[in-house]
Amino acid sequence: MKALDFTGDSLRILDQTVLPHRETWVTCMTSDEVAEAIREMKVRGAPAIATAAVYGIVLDAQQLAPVTPPDVFLQALDATMNKLLATRPTAVNLANAIQTVRALLEATTLSTDRQDHAHLVEGLREFATAFAEADVDVNRRIGRLGAEHLKRHPSSSLRVLTHCNTGTLATVEYGTALGVIRALHEQGELEHVWVDETRPFLQGARLTAFELMHEGIPFTLITDSMAGHFMKEGQVDAVVVGADRITANGDTANKIGTYSLAVLCQYHKIPFYVAAPLTTFDLRTRAGDDIPIEQRDPDEVTQVMGVRIAPAGISAAHPAFDVTPHNLITAILTEHGPIEGPSEQRIRTFFQDHVTSDIDRFEIREGEQRHAR
Amino acid sequence: MKALDFTGDSLRILDQTVLPHRETWVTCMTSDEVAEAIREMKVRGAPAIATAAVYGIVLDAQQLAPVTPPDVFLQALDATMNKLLATRPTAVNLANAIQTVRALLEATTLSTDRQDHAHLVEGLREFATAFAEADVDVNRRIGRLGAEHLKRHPSSSLRVLTHCNTGTLATVEYGTALGVIRALHEQGELEHVWVDETRPFLQGARLTAFELMHEGIPFTLITDSMAGHFMKEGQVDAVVVGADRITANGDTANKIGTYSLAVLCQYHKIPFYVAAPLTTFDLRTRAGDDIPIEQRDPDEVTQVMGVRIAPAGISAAHPAFDVTPHNLITAILTEHGPIEGPSEQRIRTFFQDHVTSDIDRFEIREGEQRHAR
Repeated sequence: MKALDFTGDSLRILDQTVLPHRETWVTCMTSDEVAEAIREMKVRGAPAIATAAVYGIVLDAQQLAPVTPPDVFLQALDATMNKLLATRPTAVNLANAIQTVRALLEATTLSTDRQDHAHLVEGLREFATAFAEADVDVNRRIGRLGAEHLKRHPSSSLRVLTHCNTGTLATVEYGTALGVIRALHEQGELEHVWVDETRPFLQGARLTAFELMHEGIPFTLITDSMAGHFMKEGQVDAVVVGADRITANGDTANKIGTYSLAVLCQYHKIPFYVAAPLTTFDLRTRAGDDIPIEQRDPDEVTQVMGVRIAPAGISAAHPAFDVTPHNLITAILTEHGPIEGPSEQRIRTFFQDHVTSDIDRFEIREGEQRHAR
Repeated sequence: MKALDFTGDSLRILDQTVLPHRETWVTCMTSDEVAEAIREMKVRGAPAIATAAVYGIVLDAQQLAPVTPPDVFLQALDATMNKLLATRPTAVNLANAIQTVRALLEATTLSTDRQDHAHLVEGLREFATAFAEADVDVNRRIGRLGAEHLKRHPSSSLRVLTHCNTGTLATVEYGTALGVIRALHEQGELEHVWVDETRPFLQGARLTAFELMHEGIPFTLITDSMAGHFMKEGQVDAVVVGADRITANGDTANKIGTYSLAVLCQYHKIPFYVAAPLTTFDLRTRAGDDIPIEQRDPDEVTQVMGVRIAPAGISAAHPAFDVTPHNLITAILTEHGPIEGPSEQRIRTFFQDHVTSDIDRFEIREGEQRHAR
């Protein structure tokens, strides 16, 4: 199973709006088509969106290079990137990826003949491949290290609750929070998964259920409103979710409903984990209050898979994300291990300790300055 | 608008499974048909179920009386009542109502000629009418007194969040929690209502939205998972919900998702109110752990209005209710005023103070003994 398939001259996207009922692939030939697929949530999940966008830039670069004058080429790619950036505002992986591409383009054009489009295009293609491969590698490390951390729980076999979809469909492969769950399962340490259906878009019911069934991992689907009940009944050992943006102090934006789970965990003394790569951190943003929360179409609330569930003409709200303050997070599970009791100081230290090697090349961008240098 | 219409020889039930899209009335000629409508949630809401069941007994009594020997008649009615009692286990209003009917039958047969079916049937009919009328009266008192209590909030105009449907459709008329909201609106003290959609059965999206629209009360529909987010944003002044059973110590069973709201309220220091008539109390049951929680068909989770939202063949859970411990409840709003900080002692005192008059005749049953006397 995978969500994206780059064929060389197109990006094929598994249409997640019609899963699990139909496996339909959408073929995107241009960044316009990729942007539309992102906006319509045919591809979703912070790492998958970033990867799709990078391929979208490659598609445009390949087509523009043979037919466009030098300056226009770079201007056109700039417009491509701005358009992709505007598709969805909350997840920062997309912004981080595009910033990296900008830095790459700048470095390449400075060091080579500006006429050499072929060289730029080749550089972008290599970057895209490396970006996608890094995502898989990073996810497997999040999974392995995260599972090791969770195994310290007194229960011999864990019952883990998760929200939304953070698996292969949300990434390039393996997943973040679902990667941790997958690793626990591979190590024989997982008893059961509680899958929040995740209204309104039903990523849990449609996508996580689909992936877990595919993997043979035992799970039970519940409505979001049941999580508290099963916590109270003592049937949840830990909650693991993904993230769309983590600010400098550890505040985390994630799919709407995540915050309520974190509050419920604190009340029930259940550990609450966020699993995310370092590319999900936005160290330029101080705290969660500064994260833009995407307001999506209320029709996604009043309709379920095309069926209207409420009277016509009523008012509905659809904030697509909420923000969990860092003090409710037991640990952030990264590819370099956990950041326990995340705070601005601990996150800064963690980055100083770990973001030094080549492997982090595509993973962490602390500011425009760094790339402009 | 009303949910039930007794025509004399049939009970017409507004089919709430197809609201708000279609207003279809189901005509029940027998208690069997009433029981089926209750099981299938064509009529739902603790007070409405109890009222429908009482009419179901009347229907059978009217049909059996002319054609059945004396002893068989009472045995048959006993079977009718047992069948109705078994339709749904959590709400106690049904059990309380049937117990009252049993007491009435016993008292009548003791005091009159056992052959006098006509007299028994007439007594049952009168009881049913009084029972339905009492519900309306009680709800209006809950609304008026509840609104007076909520108005003590420092906000000049309240933004109230509610869960499930507790309005006219859940009662005979006016509603419990929605009655409080309605009374606030009538008094110009209501700013806005947040309506939880209430998965899986969508009573909020389908029924509460329908009623509020009908009443011209301003509201916004949200998914259950958004409640915490809007509390955090400071946009919720109070939560008011109904109840299916309140035990001697104040623990309250209500629609799944209620418990999570209560925990979220405590975290955000938002008052959490339960609005319910005294007939919703089950003083024979000590605490919430002893309340039977109805487990409904998981298909009601994996399908929304006939549309499958998850892969076929997966496991899903469907506890229809959860239990909110009394320590999370700010006050229980009854027809005799609020029980603040409910506890076993306070509830006992409240009942001693208030359950003395004729008006409580149909409302509170403390045990079999009381009626056997």
